[in-house]
Amino acid sequence: MASSSAPQVITCKVAWGAGEELVMEEVEVSPPQRLEIRIKVVSTSICSRDLNARKYQAIFPRIFGHEASGIIESVGQGVTEFNEGDHVLTVFIGECMSCRTCKSGKSSICQVLGLEKKGLMHNDQKTRFAVKGEPVYHFCAISSFSEYTVVHSGCAVKISPHVPLEKLCLLSCGVAAGLGAAWNVADVSKGSTVVIFGLGTVGLSVAQGAKLRGASRIIGVDKNPRKCVNAKVFGITEVIDPNLYKERPIAQVIRHITDGGADFCFDCVGDTDIITTALESCCDGWGVTVALGVPKAKPKISAHYSLFLRGRTLKGSIFGGWKPKSDIPSLVEKYMNKEIQIDDYITHNLPFDDINKAFNLMAEGKCLRCVIHMPR
Amino acid sequence: MASSSAPQVITCKVAWGAGEELVMEEVEVSPPQRLEIRIKVVSTSICSRDLNARKYQAIFPRIFGHEASGIIESVGQGVTEFNEGDHVLTVFIGECMSCRTCKSGKSSICQVLGLEKKGLMHNDQKTRFAVKGEPVYHFCAISSFSEYTVVHSGCAVKISPHVPLEKLCLLSCGVAAGLGAAWNVADVSKGSTVVIFGLGTVGLSVAQGAKLRGASRIIGVDKNPRKCVNAKVFGITEVIDPNLYKERPIAQVIRHITDGGADFCFDCVGDTDIITTALESCCDGWGVTVALGVPKAKPKISAHYSLFLRGRTLKGSIFGGWKPKSDIPSLVEKYMNKEIQIDDYITHNLPFDDINKAFNLMAEGKCLRCVIHMPR
Repeated sequence: MASSSAPQVITCKVAWGAGEELVMEEVEVSPPQRLEIRIKVVSTSICSRDLNARKYQAIFPRIFGHEASGIIESVGQGVTEFNEGDHVLTVFIGECMSCRTCKSGKSSICQVLGLEKKGLMHNDQKTRFAVKGEPVYHFCAISSFSEYTVVHSGCAVKISPHVPLEKLCLLSCGVAAGLGAAWNVADVSKGSTVVIFGLGTVGLSVAQGAKLRGASRIIGVDKNPRKCVNAKVFGITEVIDPNLYKERPIAQVIRHITDGGADFCFDCVGDTDIITTALESCCDGWGVTVALGVPKAKPKISAHYSLFLRGRTLKGSIFGGWKPKSDIPSLVEKYMNKEIQIDDYITHNLPFDDINKAFNLMAEGKCLRCVIHMPR
Repeated sequence: MASSSAPQVITCKVAWGAGEELVMEEVEVSPPQRLEIRIKVVSTSICSRDLNARKYQAIFPRIFGHEASGIIESVGQGVTEFNEGDHVLTVFIGECMSCRTCKSGKSSICQVLGLEKKGLMHNDQKTRFAVKGEPVYHFCAISSFSEYTVVHSGCAVKISPHVPLEKLCLLSCGVAAGLGAAWNVADVSKGSTVVIFGLGTVGLSVAQGAKLRGASRIIGVDKNPRKCVNAKVFGITEVIDPNLYKERPIAQVIRHITDGGADFCFDCVGDTDIITTALESCCDGWGVTVALGVPKAKPKISAHYSLFLRGRTLKGSIFGGWKPKSDIPSLVEKYMNKEIQIDDYITHNLPFDDINKAFNLMAEGKCLRCVIHMPR
């Protein structure tokens, strides 16, 4: 029989459902199993992956949300890194610290905890959520649209209790993904010309990263004029609205204004056609295109071979190439030292009960990040 | 009026034509114009680009051949780098030494003399060849299947008169392209696993490059069993004949035997479907695919976005990223010091009159390089 201190099932509020609107319901959250932790979510924001996953992903029923911060409520067997009360950021790409990849030092895509797609816990391939006795699947190994969630201890990063969880949750995905794409994956150089397709939080974090590296031109491309308004705050030096260039391919426009093409292009939309456009917008010889988004519709990239033969490189970036446990603490430190900014990406704050308003703001392109504050 | 020492039109023998067989004919080769040199070709080999260009390229009439060595017969105005009698290798990607790219130090694809496609001289957009009074186009800025040819002085590299021109002509394209793809473009690392699709001279030069970098497994893939026989001489450690794996995609076979995928894959066939297979044969996290060949048929590469998102990189390599004038002399030196081998790629030697035999050997996959020796 479990001792009185052993974690019990928690019943709490969850926002879920497959309809037009998420509905609030009671969910049972199981105790953390071996190497797992149960987190009381403090803040969670909505990323376009949550938005798209609701529309396109087949697994159901499921609890979305993956950009989050919280406080550990209980730890499972074998967890030595964390204790109850520790403050953490969740990370959708875990770091097991022991697989070939984690030990290689060459990649952040852990072979054990990278890109969980089945909605199940690594341990036993089961879920830790149930509504009315029926299992509910996880999302991106996190599922933060719940007051409590269970994650693998490899999918959390301990942070100081003195940093503001309600801001730092953005380092859990979007802001870190953008900074890392610029720094780790593209390795943007001083004086370079950068083009960023898609001026959401990820794109504008690439811009911040490029600016901090000393890029001299940072051109933002977005069809939504609203997205362009404050883009300069984050380092964007020029904005292109593709709607104004219907008669010429946008890659041609970019090659023209950059005298032959940009040094670095980033697709932050998640669109395979835009990845091709980004490749075409790069310069011959050393142009690098980085694909960050998860394409929603057409999954195949198509590009003329000569783009590569003439010296372009295409790379992908997931979570900006950061190894979460090894690297994210240094980003937290940079934030605390005011070397990077996060606060300006938070355009809205809403209580958990208003999560549908947050989804609508995101869907309508009216926010950068809306932070959802969970009940205390 | 020209002085008596000014270069005159030379009438000499050329192998040309669009039919099944090249025919020998007399060609008039104009004097070199400003910044051009006229070369007496000593040795030229046949590269698959010559073979394919005959089949697929539209420009006609044209003189093929681009992998060559020779001796300068005369120089045009403004040429200070060369003198009559200098020994040279031709290079199809020139180096003007003054454009944005040449000065960048970041790429070898000269903006002025890179990838000539119209069959005309840079200077005046005219040809220097005529047969029976009609202009004949150049190929790859070189046209070495002629006893004499005219090239831009940026498309030649001076070499010592003590090195054997009949061997060194292979550094003019194939061997240098392969070594450079492994060293400059992929940057193959010690202990890595390498897969090479296509075991012609280029592929086997990638193998040599990978071996010299200390790769631990160098897997060659070729449908032609003849190509596999001597592959181990060049560093190939294992050979895969895709014909033996009809039931499973070859990428799956490679991922299996390499425990998750190779560190580096090279397409040396020039086939966009093989480029996709190469990407699929790389490992997650840090797999690099380098495309070297010029695809003959389908020009668009198609690949699932997740290949990139999971950490793969796709690059192209043209002439192995070498800046010809700056870098090729060091390769010549390595050959003379026996640090790289070239001789073993020369499986056949034929006189100019037998050039059709050389084409047939190449078309039938019966040779690596066949060196054509021009009349002395």
